[in-house]
Amino acid sequence: MEAKLTLVGAGPGNGDLITLKGIRALQAADVVLYDELANAELLDFAPAHALKMYVGKKAGSAAFSQNEINGLIVRLARKRGHVVRLKGGDSFVFGRGHEEMEYAREHDVTVQVVPGVSSCIAVPASLEIPVTRRGVSESFWVITGTTQSGELSDDLRLAVQSKATVVVLMGLNKLTEICDLYKHFGRGHLPMAVIQNGTRPDEKSVIGQVWEMPHLVRENNIGTPAIIVLGEVVALHPDYTMEYLQALHSNN
Amino acid sequence: MEAKLTLVGAGPGNGDLITLKGIRALQAADVVLYDELANAELLDFAPAHALKMYVGKKAGSAAFSQNEINGLIVRLARKRGHVVRLKGGDSFVFGRGHEEMEYAREHDVTVQVVPGVSSCIAVPASLEIPVTRRGVSESFWVITGTTQSGELSDDLRLAVQSKATVVVLMGLNKLTEICDLYKHFGRGHLPMAVIQNGTRPDEKSVIGQVWEMPHLVRENNIGTPAIIVLGEVVALHPDYTMEYLQALHSNN
Repeated sequence: MEAKLTLVGAGPGNGDLITLKGIRALQAADVVLYDELANAELLDFAPAHALKMYVGKKAGSAAFSQNEINGLIVRLARKRGHVVRLKGGDSFVFGRGHEEMEYAREHDVTVQVVPGVSSCIAVPASLEIPVTRRGVSESFWVITGTTQSGELSDDLRLAVQSKATVVVLMGLNKLTEICDLYKHFGRGHLPMAVIQNGTRPDEKSVIGQVWEMPHLVRENNIGTPAIIVLGEVVALHPDYTMEYLQALHSNN
Repeated sequence: MEAKLTLVGAGPGNGDLITLKGIRALQAADVVLYDELANAELLDFAPAHALKMYVGKKAGSAAFSQNEINGLIVRLARKRGHVVRLKGGDSFVFGRGHEEMEYAREHDVTVQVVPGVSSCIAVPASLEIPVTRRGVSESFWVITGTTQSGELSDDLRLAVQSKATVVVLMGLNKLTEICDLYKHFGRGHLPMAVIQNGTRPDEKSVIGQVWEMPHLVRENNIGTPAIIVLGEVVALHPDYTMEYLQALHSNN
């Protein structure tokens, strides 16, 4: 029996956004280790004999540490064979997938990577906001809102001065700081969107400008997991002008 | 009959990297308009009665203009029903997908968007290079190498000063300029990769440092379509140290 790990990107939430290659890996799994960002329906692709184990973090509970997950992967691959590690989005976008890959390989587990549809592109797209658009944005910059130090990423301080579309993942608890940074650089009127549970049936979002966003997010009870999009491309959303006028109105 | 357009991201090249939702759209297609970056095998998912039409650019030939493609979508949707527009990668990453969506909607065609696995993440991943890695890179910046003006994007001038992993799409013909820019900012020793036909059976790549890359690309006959990755994450590739030593050696 070969000890084997396949890292599978589950896509952004909607169960139909997994790849054919990801489904085939699940169908050949002996073990599936999944986290809360992966759609639970996808587990149905795995055979009945496969062990399905949740290893994500629930709000407020410690769950498994990264070391424990690494250890589990190796132990289960040796004992049962093919471990599929199912992660939300793509495993290499802030997913620690590379750390798991490296650890498994150091312990003689064969590793394969199946990329996934990343939330950083697909979630804005679910609101029909393109991260790039000819004449509007020549680039997009994807930044984590949750750094090791707990501070805003230095990359964000540079991003605010660029013309790139900026996508912040896991940044909702830093929303006010992010908006203050943009205002500090004179960009308080930049179009901005915050999207919770993007591509899922319970998707919720607000669209507006930087200055009003902390208020709009609170008022509409937007919670985690959420994605923040900053840039002129947000104004391409059909509701943008209307939302903006409403916001102006409610301020008078 | 409803005139309908579904924009489907075909993924980065490997036919198994299309999503389940993308396959379902193809199965329900009356027309498929595809370009050269989409894997031709995917056309087999479309029903026998569906019209399959290539609208991409072949090297050296003018093929269809964007206006012609926009017109085709609307005309065929009205005449035949459901048009699937199959594009390589994701339709909203430098794909002009949003322009096609907008045009179709203005002409009363119903539009749906199915995101795809983007080459900007999946192609580095096929070399096991993660665009982010805890302690190495907190962000990644995806930039087009082909701007409307024909010049290097201003975004790249800022990106070179950031700690972001930088991914340049459609930038191979600007390779020397890009490397010169990095050298100008004292980053000639930054790890760098150039990958042609990523995720396909005919994938080719070179890994090294900025200063030697134009030479390595020429020597190994790397051609388009190619993706450029710049950043410390490239050094995570198992061959990086070896390749670098070989390059040093061949220079002496």
